[in-house]
This record gives sequence, C-alpha cells and structure tokens, in this order.
Amino acid sequence: MANSTPTSLVVTGTIGIDTVHTPAAKAERILGGSATYFAAAASFFGPVRLVAAAGGDLPDSFRKTLGHFGKIDLAGLEIRPNSKTFAWGGKYHENMVQRETLFTHLGVLEEAPPTVPGSFADSGLVFLGNTHPGVQLSFLSSFPKRQLTVADTMDLWINIAKSDLLVLLRNVDGLALNNDEAELLTGKKNPVTAARHILEMGPRFVVVKKGEHGCILVHRDGIAALPAYPTETVIDPTGAGDSFAGGMMGSLAATGVTTKADLGSFEHVRKALVYGTVTASFTVESFSLDRLVKLSRADLDKRFAEYAAMVRV
Amino acid sequence: MANSTPTSLVVTGTIGIDTVHTPAAKAERILGGSATYFAAAASFFGPVRLVAAAGGDLPDSFRKTLGHFGKIDLAGLEIRPNSKTFAWGGKYHENMVQRETLFTHLGVLEEAPPTVPGSFADSGLVFLGNTHPGVQLSFLSSFPKRQLTVADTMDLWINIAKSDLLVLLRNVDGLALNNDEAELLTGKKNPVTAARHILEMGPRFVVVKKGEHGCILVHRDGIAALPAYPTETVIDPTGAGDSFAGGMMGSLAATGVTTKADLGSFEHVRKALVYGTVTASFTVESFSLDRLVKLSRADLDKRFAEYAAMVRV
Repeated sequence: MANSTPTSLVVTGTIGIDTVHTPAAKAERILGGSATYFAAAASFFGPVRLVAAAGGDLPDSFRKTLGHFGKIDLAGLEIRPNSKTFAWGGKYHENMVQRETLFTHLGVLEEAPPTVPGSFADSGLVFLGNTHPGVQLSFLSSFPKRQLTVADTMDLWINIAKSDLLVLLRNVDGLALNNDEAELLTGKKNPVTAARHILEMGPRFVVVKKGEHGCILVHRDGIAALPAYPTETVIDPTGAGDSFAGGMMGSLAATGVTTKADLGSFEHVRKALVYGTVTASFTVESFSLDRLVKLSRADLDKRFAEYAAMVRV
Repeated sequence: MANSTPTSLVVTGTIGIDTVHTPAAKAERILGGSATYFAAAASFFGPVRLVAAAGGDLPDSFRKTLGHFGKIDLAGLEIRPNSKTFAWGGKYHENMVQRETLFTHLGVLEEAPPTVPGSFADSGLVFLGNTHPGVQLSFLSSFPKRQLTVADTMDLWINIAKSDLLVLLRNVDGLALNNDEAELLTGKKNPVTAARHILEMGPRFVVVKKGEHGCILVHRDGIAALPAYPTETVIDPTGAGDSFAGGMMGSLAATGVTTKADLGSFEHVRKALVYGTVTASFTVESFSLDRLVKLSRADLDKRFAEYAAMVRV
C-alpha cells in the first residue's frame, strides 16, 4: 500500500511470450502483452499496479525486466505453475503496419481471470486492457473507488461479444480503439462520426488510434487531433497502442487531480494523449521493452518538447 | 500589373471538366483542375495569377465561377477554340480515399503548354501544378524573379519521366507529393526517411501529403507534423491537395516577406501549411468549388482558430 494515492493507477491485461517477425529481423519468445507495455510506459510517470496471469513457463528474466522499471507493483501478477503463459506470434508486412498472426496459444487466457489483490482496491484510475468485454466488466467490482475507467477493445470482441461490449461501454469513461474497429462497431466510416456514435453508447470520450498517423480524441467537450511523432526508427510496432495508453493514463495519474470530472476532462485527457504519443514513439524503436528499459524520464521530456515544437501552430 | 507585388503568386496547372462519382452522389462535368483549386484557395489570402489552357468547350459558367473569387488574375487562361478542355472522370471507393479513373481526355494537355503573359514575369512565388516535369521546367524561364518555387508531382511522372523530374528537383525550393509517391521516388517506406532523401536531390523542403491523415513537412531546418482537420463532412476529396497547396502558397505570399531565405524558412512554411490544411478541409465539403465559392475569410479564420485549439499541446 506504500504507493497508494487517491490516483493510484491499475492495469488489467496480459503478459505474453511474443514471437515477432519483421522484414528486417526476427525476435523469438520475447516479453510482450498488453499489461506489460502499458505498465512499463506508465511507470515513467508514477507507480502502476499490474493485474495479469502467467504460466509456470514465464521466464524469470521477464519478471526481472518488469522489476527494472521500479514503479510497477507486481502484487497482481498471478503465476499459475501448471498453466502456460499466453503466447503470440506475428509477422509484419513490408509497410510495418499490417501484420498477420502466425499463432496464438491462449494458455492462461482460457482460464479464470486473475484475482485482483485487495491492496489494489483503492485504485482511482483503471485501464482495462484488451480482452473479452465480459472479463473486463468482471474486473470493475474490484475497483470500487475508481474515478476514471478506460477500456481498450478489438475487432474480435465487436464481432463475437458485442452485447457484453455494449454493457461495458455504459460503465467506462473512455474507450480506445483503432479506426477500423470504430467503423466495425458503428457502421460509420468517418472516424469522428463513428466516435460520436460511440459517445452515445456511454463513454465520455473515445480515442481513435490511427497508428503511424496519430490519433483523434472525440470527447463530449471537444475534439483534438494528434499526429504521431514522425520517427524514422520503426523496428517493431508491437505494443505501441498499449504503451500509448500507458503513457496517457500514467501522465493523467501524475496530474494530481482526483475527481471523476477532472480526470476525464477534455483538457486533461488531451494533454495526456501527447504523453501517450511520445511514449509510444520510443516503444517502436526496438523489440519488446528493449527501448523503454533504456529510456529516462529526461529522454521522454526532451521528445515531448520536440513534439510540441513540431505540432505548434 | 495592378496586383503586382514582390510576392506575386502564380500557379501553372490545369483547368478541367470533371465527372466525379462518390458512393453517395454523382456530379457530371463540373469545374475541376489543379490550377482551379489552387487559385480559388490562394485567393482567400491575396491575388493569384493563373496559367492554364482550355478548349473552346470550356463552359462560360466555369470562367464566371473563377471570376467570383475576385482575386484570380485570368490573363494566363488561354482558350483554344478548336481544342478540347482536359476532362477527367473518377470514382471514389466506399472509404472516400481510394479512387479509380473512369476516363481521361487530355485535350489541350497534349498540345503546347500555355503561354505565360508578360505581366506575370515578375512573380515572386511560383507553384508548378502537377504535369510532366519537362513542362514544369519549361515554365521556370518565364519567372526570372521567382524567390520561391514549389512543385507538385505524381506517380506517373516518377515512373515515366524520372530524369526530367530529377532536373526539376534541382531547380525548386519545395516539392509536394503523397507518401506513396515519396516511396516510389526514393525506395524508402518511411515518409521522413524518404523526404530526407528527396532533400538530397535539391529542394529545401518536402511536404509529404497523407490525405485525411494530414501531412509531414521535412525541411532542412526541421520537421513538422500536422493532422488533417478532422471533418465529418467529406462529399468529394477531389482538389484537396491542390487547394492545400493554394492555401499554403497564398498565405506565404500574404506574409509580406520577399526573400528566398525568408519565404522558404521552416517557420514560414510550417505556418503556411496550417492555412493549407484548413483551406483544404473546406474544399472536400462539397463538389468542385461549391464550398469555396460560399466561403468567407472569416469562416477560414474561425476554423484556423479551431484547428489551432485542436492540435495545441
């Protein structure tokens, strides 16, 4: 409870063993997963609590890497000795944007969700990493003091669990999804129009992620558009979306504001998205957490300033 | 010569008779062409000189529409009674981004380029609308006092006239092209990397256009990234790139700076791209110049302020 504050941040998601093929290189059995990328990114701004399950096959080095970030509370990392860790293999196309899945071994993801430690119950900011919306919903009761809840989702759940997703949307403040998913959910091709429709489903704001093209924030109180940081070094895009969310939620938690109204305000969310954008721009510069492990807060602030200068009107 | 200033702006390009099919509507034989869109957009900022050829079939209403903008000098509009005006037909896909060409009737474009009136010889800012780079080059001698020259190009010329294009690039200050074309010209997929390669070919800056995703400016003195204005009203994207260029060059001309160094400076070009972005966002809200005809400078300034607020960090 040492790190407990009214704005304690928690992420529920996955830890994975990733295999990533890009046109230039291959990386086998590296640390991945939504909670992993999120927590590493968020830790640059303050403490973050991680809730995820892994199997007995989780390499010790993965835990050590997460420990390296210092501010990730691993009390919610549930190791199941007789289970397998979620494993994913993906291959990126020449453009480093489209990818195909080579394999998915669900492992612990086919079992019960991880148990949320009682010490996490006072979390004020909750990020529900991408998983079945029914599972995302089930986590909410573990965080009775939540002031800001943001969920990620994907096309699979829109296709096979839309009714659960619609219930979830009535219970979150924000939703992050990519532009194709926004269209799939609403039938609207224009990302702003699609996002407006999603606002009618419950959330106060929607972040439409466009990868290398940045993101659009559609909030009940305004719209913002952010280009991605125009990096030339894209080694592996895996985890960009999760570290974007981690930078966003982490920087929101660090503002010190504590109420639902303030945490989810247009101005706070917009500023937080810039931190998310900048944090994600580092993630893609190497495989796994390799770049984030070497990153300092000073590096991050320097690029934040560069980015601010780039988009200044 | 009434409008002549050290920063007189001229555009060389096409006037066309367009037929545009979108998933929602069809428009037959409407006013189009690169010089048309450019000049209409630029005219919101000050006088602009148009150089283009048309045939005897150019509808009177088209000339009247161009006249409506007040500040377009049509002395360089060369009507050839026995020739046909360039005509193009295109059909947009559901996403309003990809399009297929239904037909192209080159007409006057197969003949000699239009003659530049002597009254345009003192033009300080020159925009070479998309055409064969050999033709673009031939225009340069007509503008001996030019301080800033920017060219547009397309995949066709990169494929069939690359050597002429490389000569052109050694004689312009800026190049505008889309990200696929930047890759085609350089073999580099990353737009920033591709643009850096183009800088080595001659220009001081490159504007990589990404359509609904905005643009990236890669300048010898810095990089800027601008999202598009996130409009929900996209009726017809035709002319967006040309009116983007028109808003950019028009606003540059209106700064009052007159030297090559100042006109092409990173700061001036970046600010000008914002005006280009905002102007283009109106163009797509209707077919042809229908939206620009109704637009006021106050509307433009209002959206500029909105956009500035949207991208503010």
